Amino acid sequence: MFVISSSNLLRVYGNVKLYPRYLSKFIPRRTLLYVPGCDERKLRKARKLNVDLVAFDCEDGVALNQKDTARQRIREMLDCRSWPCSRPEWGVRVNAVSSELCYMDLEAILSGINCPPCILLPKVNTINEMHWFADTVSNLYSHTSPINLIVYSETAVSMMNLPKIVNAGIEIGKHSPLNLVALVMGSDDYVADIGATRTKSCSEIIYARQRLVMVAKAFELQAIDMVHIDIQDLDGLKKTSEEGAAWGFTGRQIIHPSQVTIVQAAYSPSVDKIKWATELIDAFRSHQELGKGSFVFQNQMIDMPTLKQAENIITLADATVNHK
Amino acid sequence: MFVISSSNLLRVYGNVKLYPRYLSKFIPRRTLLYVPGCDERKLRKARKLNVDLVAFDCEDGVALNQKDTARQRIREMLDCRSWPCSRPEWGVRVNAVSSELCYMDLEAILSGINCPPCILLPKVNTINEMHWFADTVSNLYSHTSPINLIVYSETAVSMMNLPKIVNAGIEIGKHSPLNLVALVMGSDDYVADIGATRTKSCSEIIYARQRLVMVAKAFELQAIDMVHIDIQDLDGLKKTSEEGAAWGFTGRQIIHPSQVTIVQAAYSPSVDKIKWATELIDAFRSHQELGKGSFVFQNQMIDMPTLKQAENIITLADATVNHK
Amino acid sequence: MFVISSSNLLRVYGNVKLYPRYLSKFIPRRTLLYVPGCDERKLRKARKLNVDLVAFDCEDGVALNQKDTARQRIREMLDCRSWPCSRPEWGVRVNAVSSELCYMDLEAILSGINCPPCILLPKVNTINEMHWFADTVSNLYSHTSPINLIVYSETAVSMMNLPKIVNAGIEIGKHSPLNLVALVMGSDDYVADIGATRTKSCSEIIYARQRLVMVAKAFELQAIDMVHIDIQDLDGLKKTSEEGAAWGFTGRQIIHPSQVTIVQAAYSPSVDKIKWATELIDAFRSHQELGKGSFVFQNQMIDMPTLKQAENIITLADATVNHK
Repeated sequence: MFVISSSNLLRVYGNVKLYPRYLSKFIPRRTLLYVPGCDERKLRKARKLNVDLVAFDCEDGVALNQKDTARQRIREMLDCRSWPCSRPEWGVRVNAVSSELCYMDLEAILSGINCPPCILLPKVNTINEMHWFADTVSNLYSHTSPINLIVYSETAVSMMNLPKIVNAGIEIGKHSPLNLVALVMGSDDYVADIGATRTKSCSEIIYARQRLVMVAKAFELQAIDMVHIDIQDLDGLKKTSEEGAAWGFTGRQIIHPSQVTIVQAAYSPSVDKIKWATELIDAFRSHQELGKGSFVFQNQMIDMPTLKQAENIITLADATVNHK
Repeated sequence: MFVISSSNLLRVYGNVKLYPRYLSKFIPRRTLLYVPGCDERKLRKARKLNVDLVAFDCEDGVALNQKDTARQRIREMLDCRSWPCSRPEWGVRVNAVSSELCYMDLEAILSGINCPPCILLPKVNTINEMHWFADTVSNLYSHTSPINLIVYSETAVSMMNLPKIVNAGIEIGKHSPLNLVALVMGSDDYVADIGATRTKSCSEIIYARQRLVMVAKAFELQAIDMVHIDIQDLDGLKKTSEEGAAWGFTGRQIIHPSQVTIVQAAYSPSVDKIKWATELIDAFRSHQELGKGSFVFQNQMIDMPTLKQAENIITLADATVNHK
Repeated sequence: MFVISSSNLLRVYGNVKLYPRYLSKFIPRRTLLYVPGCDERKLRKARKLNVDLVAFDCEDGVALNQKDTARQRIREMLDCRSWPCSRPEWGVRVNAVSSELCYMDLEAILSGINCPPCILLPKVNTINEMHWFADTVSNLYSHTSPINLIVYSETAVSMMNLPKIVNAGIEIGKHSPLNLVALVMGSDDYVADIGATRTKSCSEIIYARQRLVMVAKAFELQAIDMVHIDIQDLDGLKKTSEEGAAWGFTGRQIIHPSQVTIVQAAYSPSVDKIKWATELIDAFRSHQELGKGSFVFQNQMIDMPTLKQAENIITLADATVNHK
């Protein structure tokens, strides 16, 4: 395994201007696995999986008549301190603000001594929902540690208003414990909302997926891609995961443990890529010292943009090296 | 033919939360056929075609020196009450506000005892045009029945400003008889406006078509897709119609009677799809009663989003069952 | 070679309404070639190439320790009047406003008797940067002739805010010598900024490229497409250039003289296209005189949109006929 530490990175660059956003502490979220909050067996099993983020689900994965059970199970897990563990990161997906179930979810998970380090908020359609959520969390939460927030865009109106919603999400961080870190592409809800059909090619959501990436990255957030609901189609899972990674998504949602390995791999840089990036950064430094701006490297004309792509690869490799 | 009525639908869902927007009265507009307003023979013939919506055209399908004739013919059709008939729905495509021909069109069609139930307004580029149009219609129209409004986006500036234009279109409904029901993708004008070339793959308008769907659905409107101008290419017509339906368009424009059958079929749910949706809804209800949120159905992990896709299919099947 | 002059164009149309934006003086920018500002040999060689626009680069093509040399070389070229020549058009790509190098660039190039007719401004992310740039140019520039301005969108935040940035770019033209004429798709910086990977298919930037075209054309600007950094892959260069032209881009960036011929050809209308457009315009005129709006021409149903596409082809052919 090819390893470059952060301190090595600084050495490699020499006096070339650094890009701080890519070098700040980076928690990879290549896989986001849902576990129904009411299913104790699956909850306990999830902590042993090699995923980056586990969401205890109170929302779509839990039937209406099991919502209370889900809240209790999650509360019990929090109280007995079986979580947190150092890895995977974990959080609770509450019900949407518009569902009128969200308050009860928050009351349950924010009431005890232990609270989740991350909340996943689905179906955010308006700025007002962001404000209601921030106010409610602030009222219920009595600790001082920040809570990571992950927001879902799952409808046409949400996608249309996404820049404004995310801007509100950043703003609420100034007067609440919430720290917006990622956006999720709620692909199947979005497709249902626009009356489309999910196809193998995913051509029906090119616009929405690439728009979500643009908005996420404009606010320096991670972008978590669509689910793959055909759990037997591992080829399709691999193909769409690799496409998502190439499009700028930093990870994707998974709905079954069988999807873990393929998705983790697709969102991790390959050994070849890391080698290419390291050599390119080295060549770039040499050429800068010689006073040459752009130069040819492996048939490609290289200047700053390609350097930045190489930097991204090394940053990700560095962040994920301990948990392939 | 597999039939589910609205009352059946309510029964099927039981106590699962309903999504009212998909269950409100739904007028399908799978086919929007243009007939030149000056061509009496084609106008009379159109009422016998199995299309969902016929537009009597005053705009691009009518030469400049025939605009007066078109207005007169349409006025005569309205006066002799040969229309309305119960089906197809019909309306008048007036000239764009910016053309300076629009006032004369509106004067002609809104002056008599009978008025069209629907107006199609092309090339809307600004909010001001929406306001002028609403004011003019309000001044000329002396009846109390609402008029359905269908708005075209056909230029770069219109597409860029589309959320604001549609919002204005919704707002004018509060103080005018106009009721915005659909957006139309003016594909060929858009392509000309951006200096692009229409290709078989339609790759040049992926962004614009999917943006229009997003905005339409964000405001709960129908989305009517591009024309297919090669009238001999029925394979291409079928392929692009099926793609449009999969992308969330609810119908498309047609320019020749030979295009009717293929397009109607592409925008109607197949018997297989209806069967899948019905069985899925049934399975979903059973699992909810057993307290299971998500479950596996035909290799797919099912929760709320897929249920909603199934709902859409049944709603459309229900609305179109009497006029395949 | 098939030639139609502007005066012929007016004759061809007869009394059909003209579309002034396509008939105003049109400077083609099919190829935008970068030459490092510090490389005197390449600068002198560039004027003999058959490209539409040469950019003397102070930015990414110039190493940090060569920025001063680049400014001096460009100042010398301006002083010795070896430029301007009538063709190619030329300009200076300064460093981004955010780089803190931009002021020194502007001081060098705007200080003498001769100034560049065009400035290319990379990495514009905010409206404030546009205002700073306009104020700085106004203060440093003592001549009365306008300076063409070409603005780059190269980050997620820039792409998200592009309509507002371009609107500001138009506004600053009212109180500064700057005349915004084109937008550039900074593809490789954009891809690095969103953490994506450049692929052969370019599928990762469909949204961004088509959004840039929409915004450019909404403000009646030219749209200059991505670079192709694999300088040996001429097939890929041809394919992506033809696609860009079909999508509404008016030209693209090139980074090596070997790319000139293929790109110039891809953005120029073919003899067949010009023949098609001329015959279609002729047929359209005849049908309008006979009072027919739409008609069938080579299996296609023709009305105004297709006429406009034909107009675009003739306008471009007319503008580029003297420098194929």
